[in-house]
Amino acid sequence: METPEVLAWRDGRIEALDQTALPHQVRTLHLTTVDELIDAITRLAIRGAPLLGAAGALGVALAIRQGQKQGWDAARLASEIDRIATARPTAVNLAREVRAVAGAGDAEAAALAVLAETAKTSQRLSVRGAAFLREACADRRLRVHTHCNTGALACLGWGTALGVIRALHQEGALDHVIVDETRPLLQGARLTCWELGQLGIEHRLICDGAGPFLISQGLVDAVVVGADRIAANGDVANKIGTYSLALAARRAGIPFVVAAPESTIDQDTPDGAAIPIELRAEEEVTGTAAPAGTRAVNFAFDVTPAELITAIVTQDRVVEPPPF
Amino acid sequence: METPEVLAWRDGRIEALDQTALPHQVRTLHLTTVDELIDAITRLAIRGAPLLGAAGALGVALAIRQGQKQGWDAARLASEIDRIATARPTAVNLAREVRAVAGAGDAEAAALAVLAETAKTSQRLSVRGAAFLREACADRRLRVHTHCNTGALACLGWGTALGVIRALHQEGALDHVIVDETRPLLQGARLTCWELGQLGIEHRLICDGAGPFLISQGLVDAVVVGADRIAANGDVANKIGTYSLALAARRAGIPFVVAAPESTIDQDTPDGAAIPIELRAEEEVTGTAAPAGTRAVNFAFDVTPAELITAIVTQDRVVEPPPF
Repeated sequence: METPEVLAWRDGRIEALDQTALPHQVRTLHLTTVDELIDAITRLAIRGAPLLGAAGALGVALAIRQGQKQGWDAARLASEIDRIATARPTAVNLAREVRAVAGAGDAEAAALAVLAETAKTSQRLSVRGAAFLREACADRRLRVHTHCNTGALACLGWGTALGVIRALHQEGALDHVIVDETRPLLQGARLTCWELGQLGIEHRLICDGAGPFLISQGLVDAVVVGADRIAANGDVANKIGTYSLALAARRAGIPFVVAAPESTIDQDTPDGAAIPIELRAEEEVTGTAAPAGTRAVNFAFDVTPAELITAIVTQDRVVEPPPF
Repeated sequence: METPEVLAWRDGRIEALDQTALPHQVRTLHLTTVDELIDAITRLAIRGAPLLGAAGALGVALAIRQGQKQGWDAARLASEIDRIATARPTAVNLAREVRAVAGAGDAEAAALAVLAETAKTSQRLSVRGAAFLREACADRRLRVHTHCNTGALACLGWGTALGVIRALHQEGALDHVIVDETRPLLQGARLTCWELGQLGIEHRLICDGAGPFLISQGLVDAVVVGADRIAANGDVANKIGTYSLALAARRAGIPFVVAAPESTIDQDTPDGAAIPIELRAEEEVTGTAAPAGTRAVNFAFDVTPAELITAIVTQDRVVEPPPF
């Protein structure tokens, strides 16, 4: 079965699945203003690097409509579009697609093209990644570990890392998936388990800290993750917790594969140290468990150095090993 | 200020702080039967390798009292004592202290001696560990990362890893502590933050997956953890998530120190592969976030190979590097 529509443009507004409500509620947001869109992006109702790119693209069309209604001048419109581009700092796709659509003649048509292209790209990437992994792992039925959520919810179409897993499943080459919780917002437990359940793909949930141990025990054949930004030297920013899996995979001698569209590669960022890492609200970590007044440090992403990455798979190529 | 009494023997029963109720409630359990004690141990109301040893020691005295009341024969008493010894499999201290007290003449006196010795041991260990770290880190004010809870709650006295941190603090050699949540039962967020708060020691909470990134960014000077069992070759079983910190510390070139009493070293276990790793209930991981019906794998501990460990500090010595 297919997941409900993740992102659409309808009657001049953005419709988006509220990813904070999953898995217990399937709720669609109807966004008519730039403020509403930015709120949805910052609270992660809309998330995932490729989806952020597509949402940003639609956001330009939304800003133009709102500007027409409210009589914005060109400077105001440019400033509103810039607010969308910078709503979250790490995923390069958001700013990239916003700027591309803002520079196009017909913003709505350009944004819809981004949506269609995002979905198509993820399909091609998925098949390419599955082929690479089957060869790298000698055509066994694979036990694949993934982190965070990189499926249809994050990417439209099939997804990036989860798309690769879906392709492996369809080809009969998947044994099962190890999904980690992905604290603090539990995108693995909430979203990836939900998508895999919908697709009928066998999976097991683990705590974030358990991944390296399972890898060390020979319980994982390959790690596949997405990316929020890939620097020119091949360093990869992805959801916090990714780096520890790369360290464990290297020590165990299993492939650590990054699946991401070409648009996630940022040639203007020389290396991982130059990638801006979003620091989010402490309350996401302290939650209700810690004593009142506890302070937290909440980096949303980490950086995996290129040398720990077996391959970066895009819709067009397998780069093995990075840099480009 | 001191934390409330963690474990005591009073009027022929065991009094224990209920560690599942912290930090929001300070509640004392009054345990009068072996069943009640085993329930408290299995649901982690009483936890931490040294504390499990002390509770097991008192458990023998408790079993003898209950047996006298209920007319148990020697076989029944031995079987009840064995149930205590095997209530949790990974921490060697539990079975070790149960067997020692069961073989003593006066069980109550022997058990009380274990309690006193456990507290004293942790003090000596703490001071020794702090001295080692100050030297290893060239007497800077240290930013120390720890995992799970290894303070007074886990060990009586000062604790193991958290005891080392407390000694550093007292010597003016501590900058601040990085505490990870320690999923799934959040002993870091709930217990370590609570103890550090009581002691007035500056600390920051992070997600488990964030530790390796902070270490890679130069934000941590040393990692100090406890142990549930140390094999003869120096491999260390400790709370799940420990291994990833050892991998990251090695790559960053900072010390990874294990603080544990001599009684945690198990010469009868040749290496980490021979340590029984407790697999706990799936519901601890799936909780309320995952879709209904999600399956989980819940290893409570992982194994860090000796070669990743800078030093093992006990009350008597610094072994650097293992094996023994």
